[in-house]
Amino acid sequence: MSDPFVVVGADAAGLSAASKFRREAPDREVVVFEKGRWISYAYCGMPYFIAGYVDRLSDLLSLSPSEVAERGIDLRRGREVIAVDPDAKRVTVETAEGDRFERAYGDLLVATGARADPGPFDVRGLDGAFTLHNMDAAAAIDAYVAEPEAYDPDRADVSAVDRDRTERNAAMPAPETAAVVGGGYVGVEVAEALAERGLEVRVFHRSGHLLSPFGEAVGSRVEAALEAEGVAVHTDAPVDALVGDDRIEAVEVGSGGGGASPERIPVDMAVVGVGIRPNTELLDGTGFDRGPGDAIRVDDRGRTSLPDVYAAGDCATARHAVTGEPDWTPLGLTANRAGRAIGATVAGDPTPVGDIAGTAAVKAFDTEAARVGILDPDAAEAAGFDPVRETVTAGSRSGYYPGAAETDVTLVADRDTRGLLGGSVVGTDRAAIRIDTLATAIEADMTVPEVERLDLAYAPPFSPVWDPILVAAKVLNGKIDG
Amino acid sequence: MSDPFVVVGADAAGLSAASKFRREAPDREVVVFEKGRWISYAYCGMPYFIAGYVDRLSDLLSLSPSEVAERGIDLRRGREVIAVDPDAKRVTVETAEGDRFERAYGDLLVATGARADPGPFDVRGLDGAFTLHNMDAAAAIDAYVAEPEAYDPDRADVSAVDRDRTERNAAMPAPETAAVVGGGYVGVEVAEALAERGLEVRVFHRSGHLLSPFGEAVGSRVEAALEAEGVAVHTDAPVDALVGDDRIEAVEVGSGGGGASPERIPVDMAVVGVGIRPNTELLDGTGFDRGPGDAIRVDDRGRTSLPDVYAAGDCATARHAVTGEPDWTPLGLTANRAGRAIGATVAGDPTPVGDIAGTAAVKAFDTEAARVGILDPDAAEAAGFDPVRETVTAGSRSGYYPGAAETDVTLVADRDTRGLLGGSVVGTDRAAIRIDTLATAIEADMTVPEVERLDLAYAPPFSPVWDPILVAAKVLNGKIDG
Repeated sequence: MSDPFVVVGADAAGLSAASKFRREAPDREVVVFEKGRWISYAYCGMPYFIAGYVDRLSDLLSLSPSEVAERGIDLRRGREVIAVDPDAKRVTVETAEGDRFERAYGDLLVATGARADPGPFDVRGLDGAFTLHNMDAAAAIDAYVAEPEAYDPDRADVSAVDRDRTERNAAMPAPETAAVVGGGYVGVEVAEALAERGLEVRVFHRSGHLLSPFGEAVGSRVEAALEAEGVAVHTDAPVDALVGDDRIEAVEVGSGGGGASPERIPVDMAVVGVGIRPNTELLDGTGFDRGPGDAIRVDDRGRTSLPDVYAAGDCATARHAVTGEPDWTPLGLTANRAGRAIGATVAGDPTPVGDIAGTAAVKAFDTEAARVGILDPDAAEAAGFDPVRETVTAGSRSGYYPGAAETDVTLVADRDTRGLLGGSVVGTDRAAIRIDTLATAIEADMTVPEVERLDLAYAPPFSPVWDPILVAAKVLNGKIDG
Repeated sequence: MSDPFVVVGADAAGLSAASKFRREAPDREVVVFEKGRWISYAYCGMPYFIAGYVDRLSDLLSLSPSEVAERGIDLRRGREVIAVDPDAKRVTVETAEGDRFERAYGDLLVATGARADPGPFDVRGLDGAFTLHNMDAAAAIDAYVAEPEAYDPDRADVSAVDRDRTERNAAMPAPETAAVVGGGYVGVEVAEALAERGLEVRVFHRSGHLLSPFGEAVGSRVEAALEAEGVAVHTDAPVDALVGDDRIEAVEVGSGGGGASPERIPVDMAVVGVGIRPNTELLDGTGFDRGPGDAIRVDDRGRTSLPDVYAAGDCATARHAVTGEPDWTPLGLTANRAGRAIGATVAGDPTPVGDIAGTAAVKAFDTEAARVGILDPDAAEAAGFDPVRETVTAGSRSGYYPGAAETDVTLVADRDTRGLLGGSVVGTDRAAIRIDTLATAIEADMTVPEVERLDLAYAPPFSPVWDPILVAAKVLNGKIDG
């Protein structure tokens, strides 16, 4: 075990693993290779930077390279691991200059993350067209949105930023209209951000409701919340193409279904958020097992099918608490937690990476929404359940207390066992945080009758006597009783 | 079973039981005897009425007598059940005029609630001195606080209100200073309410921290929150006496300990909230079993030791989720839930009343606090545990997101099993509602390592990657390992 613990990728999973390993095994070596210049940035914060809620790009960095060095971690930026030889236990590394070298590992963690999948769209070749999946893109979008004379270069106050790209975007005329292509949570957050910056924003979503994984009850309220703030929401409206020569001029919508002729809608900007894809190319040729979403399949300790090779974060699967099966739901906590657990395991303290429940939260202006578990009846049936679903609307506080707001709770259960399978919450008053109650109930394998009897907090400023979650459980139980 | 289901008390537990029974057994008779004029009022809302957050006393009523009648419930107000003969299965009822009659029952529910215990203080004989445990008191306090010329009689817009008492209090000169005797949650809420009404308020609490059942971490932050709004907080300061002839003139403090001479602090008003006591007198002589707090001991179906006699709400015990033992923690959800379950059980559908976790929440101006389970190490030891406790301070949101606020989470676990025993949360940003996560974990018998691995929602506006609860679990696990 004299060869080092090699980590590929210096973001949430990678640095969590390296830090935990270093604390638990202070005498052993850990090397982190990062292909880019950025480390440890808060991907989830980028829309809020663009919105202007966050003043500086540097606010989104949780660790600087020097802080990483102080932890005793050998961080090598501008070093891309391009191949792994699991038999020889060596990685091939390529420098930014194109030089290559090999490095032996004792244990290897692949924490390469994911990248925006632009789908069929050419965002690179068109000014004003973007995906949002790294800090350079966030800086470029922020610069593009600003009036050239009003742009504040201090906003992108990080040495790692791609200054040429930022300055080029800052110099372009500010857009007045924007298309957000894809109504997932990044799409919703970007729509809010661009509207906050004064743009006229349209969101185009392929299917019938925004935020598909959150279910209809959430989707319809989030659509209403966006529209109330002037954002136009187009559902069942797949974008076929971005139109323009050098700069984007329009999006082409709706040629897909039923022979309708496509419509061109002029826009000065487009942000494409139609999906992401795990970065797994460095394992090509090793014969590693893949899981859902073509992510790297791992077990409950984060081990891949290759000996002494772990994977964590957005490139890896995790076990779903409801199905017990591998799932791919790339989110920040999953990455941090799995990285930390693998750091401990490699240091000699075997630690489970933990199940995921698919817990996610998002906001659209003042409307908060969250989801957990399995909400889609088809997905529940595919997993072998007989799903029954109910949505209730209940007050967030005692009815007489100022600020009480309608809160919609959806619960999905298995008809036979009454086991809780999933749920969502949407509303304007402390709605999103209530999902943690359901996440805990799901990870504890609770039934809906057990949820109905939970002793949740009642106090008029925070919750009515019967919390919206209890109301939903009561109504769903009644529905199952028939 | 031709004799009716007789319910004593027309508030949360009694009316929940009668309503549920009526729906499930529409052909059977249910009679509710209520000694007073008020039914179905929100005790927990009274401080917010006094504060002025709620415009009308009637806003605190959830059901009117005519709505109860529409449900097919035979409600008799002004009828006090003064005795129960469990052998003959009959109750003795006394009317407001002093007449008595007997009534046979098939099943009996005692839902008589609790009353304020004024301790050694004579609040009835002194103008300006109050306890707060019914609507007449709320109306009187509200009237007393108002300037005589500014009092709005429409605030107490309910026919059942004691108009003589209200008008007498309204006519008195408005107080400028107030003492709140007792720093439990009613005391904290009343202190806020009176401060909102412009009074100079002092809170006197017997022990070292306000909100003793919430633990020190909560008590000290709530004290700071009150003081920041100008409320003086005196801890270790038992009040010995209320001083005055007709109207209160002062409170006498501090003769209790160490031979210090008592201090007289002039006040124009005092609200005493030093405890409550279950109303059980109607069962005197029946030989019924008592539990903690001298409340009526019941089993998991709400059955007392007397045949066909149930008890629910503030007069009854409930089983504690952590100890499995009877406990007395009178709160609104417990009453509603137990009443509803007993209504179903009596109708022929045996239903557990559910465990309690001691979940409670309170606010002091913008600071929210909540607690669950066993927080006090002595109480944990008495229940056979080896408690270990930790308090952490963590952000409520991602650090870069506006509005992130310091949130203190305390967790208590059993060292041996690592089972979660209790917890508290205090802070200004969505703090109280987070207790539901811990309540769910406690009712699911989770360990602290399981809590640490919970997949809680992460989104910058609502929670950092590591939610404060996850941080607390991580630190507590480290302490146990340490």
